[in-house]
Amino acid sequence: MSSLATATFVLAILAPVSGQYLFPDCNNGPLKSNAVCDTSGSSVDRATALVNEMTLAEKLNSTGNVNPGVPRLGLPAYDWWQEALHGVATRHGANYTPKGDYSHATSFPQPLLMGAAFDDELIFDVATVISTEARAFSNANRLGLDLWTPNINPFRDPRWGRGQEVPGEDPFHLQSYVKALITGLQGGVDPDVYRVVATCKHFAAYDLENWNGIRRYDFDAQVSAQDLKEYYMPPFQTCARDAKVGAFMCSYNSLNGVPACANEYLMQTILREHWGWNASDHWVVSDCDAVQQVFSSGAHDHAYAATREQTVADTLVAGTDLNCGTYYPNYLGNAIAQGLVEESVLDQSLIRLYSAFVRLGYFDSNASHPYRSLGWSNVSTPASERLAYNAAAESIVLLKNDGTLPYAITPSTTVALIGEWANATVSMQGNYAGTAPYLHSPLYALQQLNVTVNYATGPGQSNPLTDFIPAAVRAANRSDVIIYIGGMDQEDADEGDDRYWIDWTQTQRDLISQVAALGKPCILVQMGMMLDSSQFLANPNISALLWAGYPGQDGGTAIMDIITGTVAPAGRLPVTQYPAGYVNDVPMTDMSLRPGPNNPGRTYRWYEDAVVPFGFGLHYTNFSASFTSSPSSTYSIASLMGNCTDVYPDRCPFQAFPVNVTNTGSTASDFVTLGFLSGQFGPQPYPIKTLVAYDRLHDVQPGSSRITMLNLTLGSLARVDELGNTVLYPGDYALLVDQPTQVSFTPANLAATITTESTLTNRGKAILNFTLTGDEVVLDEWPQPPEQYMGYRA
Amino acid sequence: MSSLATATFVLAILAPVSGQYLFPDCNNGPLKSNAVCDTSGSSVDRATALVNEMTLAEKLNSTGNVNPGVPRLGLPAYDWWQEALHGVATRHGANYTPKGDYSHATSFPQPLLMGAAFDDELIFDVATVISTEARAFSNANRLGLDLWTPNINPFRDPRWGRGQEVPGEDPFHLQSYVKALITGLQGGVDPDVYRVVATCKHFAAYDLENWNGIRRYDFDAQVSAQDLKEYYMPPFQTCARDAKVGAFMCSYNSLNGVPACANEYLMQTILREHWGWNASDHWVVSDCDAVQQVFSSGAHDHAYAATREQTVADTLVAGTDLNCGTYYPNYLGNAIAQGLVEESVLDQSLIRLYSAFVRLGYFDSNASHPYRSLGWSNVSTPASERLAYNAAAESIVLLKNDGTLPYAITPSTTVALIGEWANATVSMQGNYAGTAPYLHSPLYALQQLNVTVNYATGPGQSNPLTDFIPAAVRAANRSDVIIYIGGMDQEDADEGDDRYWIDWTQTQRDLISQVAALGKPCILVQMGMMLDSSQFLANPNISALLWAGYPGQDGGTAIMDIITGTVAPAGRLPVTQYPAGYVNDVPMTDMSLRPGPNNPGRTYRWYEDAVVPFGFGLHYTNFSASFTSSPSSTYSIASLMGNCTDVYPDRCPFQAFPVNVTNTGSTASDFVTLGFLSGQFGPQPYPIKTLVAYDRLHDVQPGSSRITMLNLTLGSLARVDELGNTVLYPGDYALLVDQPTQVSFTPANLAATITTESTLTNRGKAILNFTLTGDEVVLDEWPQPPEQYMGYRA
Repeated sequence: MSSLATATFVLAILAPVSGQYLFPDCNNGPLKSNAVCDTSGSSVDRATALVNEMTLAEKLNSTGNVNPGVPRLGLPAYDWWQEALHGVATRHGANYTPKGDYSHATSFPQPLLMGAAFDDELIFDVATVISTEARAFSNANRLGLDLWTPNINPFRDPRWGRGQEVPGEDPFHLQSYVKALITGLQGGVDPDVYRVVATCKHFAAYDLENWNGIRRYDFDAQVSAQDLKEYYMPPFQTCARDAKVGAFMCSYNSLNGVPACANEYLMQTILREHWGWNASDHWVVSDCDAVQQVFSSGAHDHAYAATREQTVADTLVAGTDLNCGTYYPNYLGNAIAQGLVEESVLDQSLIRLYSAFVRLGYFDSNASHPYRSLGWSNVSTPASERLAYNAAAESIVLLKNDGTLPYAITPSTTVALIGEWANATVSMQGNYAGTAPYLHSPLYALQQLNVTVNYATGPGQSNPLTDFIPAAVRAANRSDVIIYIGGMDQEDADEGDDRYWIDWTQTQRDLISQVAALGKPCILVQMGMMLDSSQFLANPNISALLWAGYPGQDGGTAIMDIITGTVAPAGRLPVTQYPAGYVNDVPMTDMSLRPGPNNPGRTYRWYEDAVVPFGFGLHYTNFSASFTSSPSSTYSIASLMGNCTDVYPDRCPFQAFPVNVTNTGSTASDFVTLGFLSGQFGPQPYPIKTLVAYDRLHDVQPGSSRITMLNLTLGSLARVDELGNTVLYPGDYALLVDQPTQVSFTPANLAATITTESTLTNRGKAILNFTLTGDEVVLDEWPQPPEQYMGYRA
Repeated sequence: MSSLATATFVLAILAPVSGQYLFPDCNNGPLKSNAVCDTSGSSVDRATALVNEMTLAEKLNSTGNVNPGVPRLGLPAYDWWQEALHGVATRHGANYTPKGDYSHATSFPQPLLMGAAFDDELIFDVATVISTEARAFSNANRLGLDLWTPNINPFRDPRWGRGQEVPGEDPFHLQSYVKALITGLQGGVDPDVYRVVATCKHFAAYDLENWNGIRRYDFDAQVSAQDLKEYYMPPFQTCARDAKVGAFMCSYNSLNGVPACANEYLMQTILREHWGWNASDHWVVSDCDAVQQVFSSGAHDHAYAATREQTVADTLVAGTDLNCGTYYPNYLGNAIAQGLVEESVLDQSLIRLYSAFVRLGYFDSNASHPYRSLGWSNVSTPASERLAYNAAAESIVLLKNDGTLPYAITPSTTVALIGEWANATVSMQGNYAGTAPYLHSPLYALQQLNVTVNYATGPGQSNPLTDFIPAAVRAANRSDVIIYIGGMDQEDADEGDDRYWIDWTQTQRDLISQVAALGKPCILVQMGMMLDSSQFLANPNISALLWAGYPGQDGGTAIMDIITGTVAPAGRLPVTQYPAGYVNDVPMTDMSLRPGPNNPGRTYRWYEDAVVPFGFGLHYTNFSASFTSSPSSTYSIASLMGNCTDVYPDRCPFQAFPVNVTNTGSTASDFVTLGFLSGQFGPQPYPIKTLVAYDRLHDVQPGSSRITMLNLTLGSLARVDELGNTVLYPGDYALLVDQPTQVSFTPANLAATITTESTLTNRGKAILNFTLTGDEVVLDEWPQPPEQYMGYRA
């Protein structure tokens, strides 16, 4: 008998806990006698009773995202890591079945595209569907109850790979959007019973993946107090203070020398103290292995803490309650034994986590809970599917139109459908996606119109080959109209990957210019994130240009319905479309917003040379807009403050400005009113303009007028000084509606091209001037960082 | 009846020609009366007859890689793009069947690993198998006869994503390797009948994919004449002049302002004139769409030619005969019509291509051709499989050993096998791979030893998560010995992607340091390209370190056989292992080799602070080496030249130096003798040392001595001056055998670690000094570029 036959082979696969999410049994399980199961107690008392029952070893086991539970106590295993960026996700999300019940969920557009809708009600509805579907999956033991969404870092630099995950570049826009989103996810602002717990991430100043040798894991974001308060903080302030999100996630990067997950100034001074986000069930989770990255044993990390034990002590004390990763379960025990951190600090974190779980009804019986009856019939309903379609259709932005659109496609039309995205399916979802019930590609949608289609795929952004061109030209030659759908995709920019280029590839430009040169109607649809489209805007052979981002499960249908006029476009760019050369003008690592010697300025507030500016979007009709009344031309700061009783004065109302919007054309259409403030008040330099309010009117009929309200607060008027204080200044203010004050559209001939709007797609414009008088007043005094901020332990 | 039911939907997929490679029928087809079928004619006459028969349209059709053929003439369709980097490839390679005959082919290690064998006979054998298998696939109409291999650009910068595809960093090494390779592929040097036509690429100075906003498509490599001749050109000189390769590929990048594929200086002056690579059947193909990249319509290209027609005229006139892409077929017609290029230039290119095809026997009948009987029985034979195993086993490099290796694994041994590569299969192949007959992972190989295996996968280079650590530590805790197999992979660096980091990730370092801290025998196997392993070399808990690159279909077996001592390691590093901080010391775009203000120098010749130097490799035994005789201590340059009759004097023999190698230990082992020259002769600065000869002895038995010959030529002694001239200088020369003259091994304690060689793995060392007297003499006068090289048309 050979040794091969006699010897034993044992293959031990060491697997993590399974993806089954069970609820504790408070009726018959070991927990029933613990006060956590006493529904008459407060959430914190119930959670405290549970934690008090746990041994130190059991507590330590409960500090990582993969939590084995406490079998002795009847506390089930749980994985805290769930994602639901634009629908219940698969990766680190729901445990989907291969087919049948729970095999799919509604897959909405990426947030960047939904940001273009400027429609907070839409976002609330989307978030409500997501939390409903999450609850259904949870009730089937296929998902947990905390979702690591939203990603709400402002889109500072066009190169950012995760820019697709956020609603845009403007902090006010993000504040408004995220409040609607969290309210929909959690089931209200601070509801008694959470639908789910949302998680605002990544706190803070995280917006770089991997650029020029700098990775998110070791990037030290150097941010001034002014930029921090004015640009990087507002969405998080809204999460914490106004939307009362249940959880935060600290980010990989450092902020001014201190890793975010070890940053007491961020998590204690600002988040918990200044913003009052200190309920007993508010918790902070680390990004996945951000705690490890604090450890100082190598070149790629923050070189911040000397030992693993010091690392976990630092991060726990700084306010990171839960560790996505294994450093807490592995090293907190030793850290406590070494006296680096008290067990009571760990207890507080666990009580925060389990208090939230009490509010989620985790310990309640099905019968007593408002969301525990949700099931498969509540997932991917016809209404949800319609909403996913609407979210795409509302958001698509018309960037150019020479009158070709809407294009009447009839059964006798022959259409050339060209490009890498022409038959896109999963590409339409972008990252952090779930399994959609269907993925209607542009080709699929066109097929439903029963036209003759000459389809030719095209080169991706990373493909230099011209092989695709001859087939594309043949398809175009045989057709009445050319639709090219392309741009960039996940291969070019995603989590972990920033871009170095923001222009179309030579091969795509080459292909497009060749098919356009045929002189036929030629419609471009640009997908993904922004690319410099100046040459298409300037090329008279390009009839129209749409931007459709990552449009989700019904994206193809939405695109075709916009093209054919079934839906009229009304989206507005949620980001600046920068010229290609912008990437050479400022390093991605430069966090400054204002222009400087090596920085031409960032976002529409500070950068003047956009190819297409933030807020731009054409229509199939004409609109006019005017202020219906001028409530006052002068306001006294003192009396404004005298009427303000909010503990956060920036939230006090200033004035509601009614705007009369008239559809003067012949096509019914939605209309987004964007209200910008402009003027020389507060500290220099002055921004070009600042978004302070927006509203979306739906289905404005031809010839009809509608009133839209721009609700300004005292915070709308304020500026941020160099210390980060939010200040109301006396001065002359101009409220602009839908007024691009970018100095010029470049290239030079672009203005003429874009102002086809003046004949076809005019947008309303209105200006209202007013003055603030009296002395300046601080609305929000910003907490200053410790003297030695470059290391708070110094 | 709804419109949906009545209207017609036509989906026109415009596909390229099929993957079926047919031979023309010279017996019964339309060609039979054409002189191309007259086997008594010369290849050029036969090709000319064919081209003369073609209409202009048919010629134009034949200028792209996807050639529809000329049905009228009985000339079949053909795709010129075939790859066979380390075996017959699938992508742009053979048309494999799903199973059964022609479903696989031998998959050798990546060239970078095979470079470590320093065994030209091995490379010849590998190439012979590849060309044999290619012929078998060709005879089954599943592959063409021209292969776009080898990639022979020197590995200049450790960040290069395609460094895996080339044999190393040293030009002499590459020259020697590539001559063996081409001889094996083509069936000899300038054989009457080609086995296949090989293609030396990428000509020239191509070694950057995508770094910091610079892409290979638009990178303008600024190279001095000295560096060009000394570093970037030698492998190509060997291809053209000495190995007489059939084809060249011009590269994407520009060289000193002129795109390589429009570079008359490169392709005409140097390649065809200076190197005499001007046979009637020598052709140049463009990299895939390098011709398009010359076109000047955008920011990403060379902005070189103003129109597409000028582009194709420029590139054809400059010497690019064939266009991978569609620019030639699409635009050459107009370019000729516009008088930008003569049809006769196109004729010349086509005659080159078809002349080669005559030599390939493309127009011959099966019966008359020496390779047309090869078939499936010649593919993946037992001998080929053994060769693939040997290629890996010979090449693996032992970088550290405290005596733990070889490690006797018995059925009673419990082994922890940890890491992302522990069960690697296709990862072992690297890029440009074919379908292997099997892929024996390390786990598979260990299973064959009938031991108890505790397997735990690990984090990839791009994964920051510590989730893997607990399972890995548990596996290590349960085991007698720990084997960690990891490093980087294709995700970190590949075609199109350069690296920004050359150190191990924090998570891998963390995991390894934790399992090593258990104090058990701990063996690391580093895969992929180089990473800075200094901390593992310095860590006394790490017992041994191997580098195994991308080892191919039997890589796991080769690794385990080295670990257990079934095979004794004798590979040598074909590249410098740089410290992690090197990437901050010099931009990847700096093409200079010599040290300068912002460049610490490149390769072992100019860089002193390697973590592990080029040529390093330990053994399981001790070797001593000595020069057996000192042929002469003084040589007269005049008499050396007087004895030299070669038209290329650098090829004239100088002296054969016999070296006596003795295995003084107790383990049979191969031994690689590396002969370096050192000394202060020729222009300053002087390189640290220069490889001039190498030889591999096989299976040197304990106690036995063998003679190895170092054959030096006049070229071995020469230096290159600032004009690029190759010059023989008087001076004092030292010939070193296996003598690392790197000033120091860093970090400081590394020397002690590495010099465990002094007790266990001593390598022979010998020095021989001699002097050249007389006046300097130019061996090769380098053609100077045109005055206005920044645009030869200026």
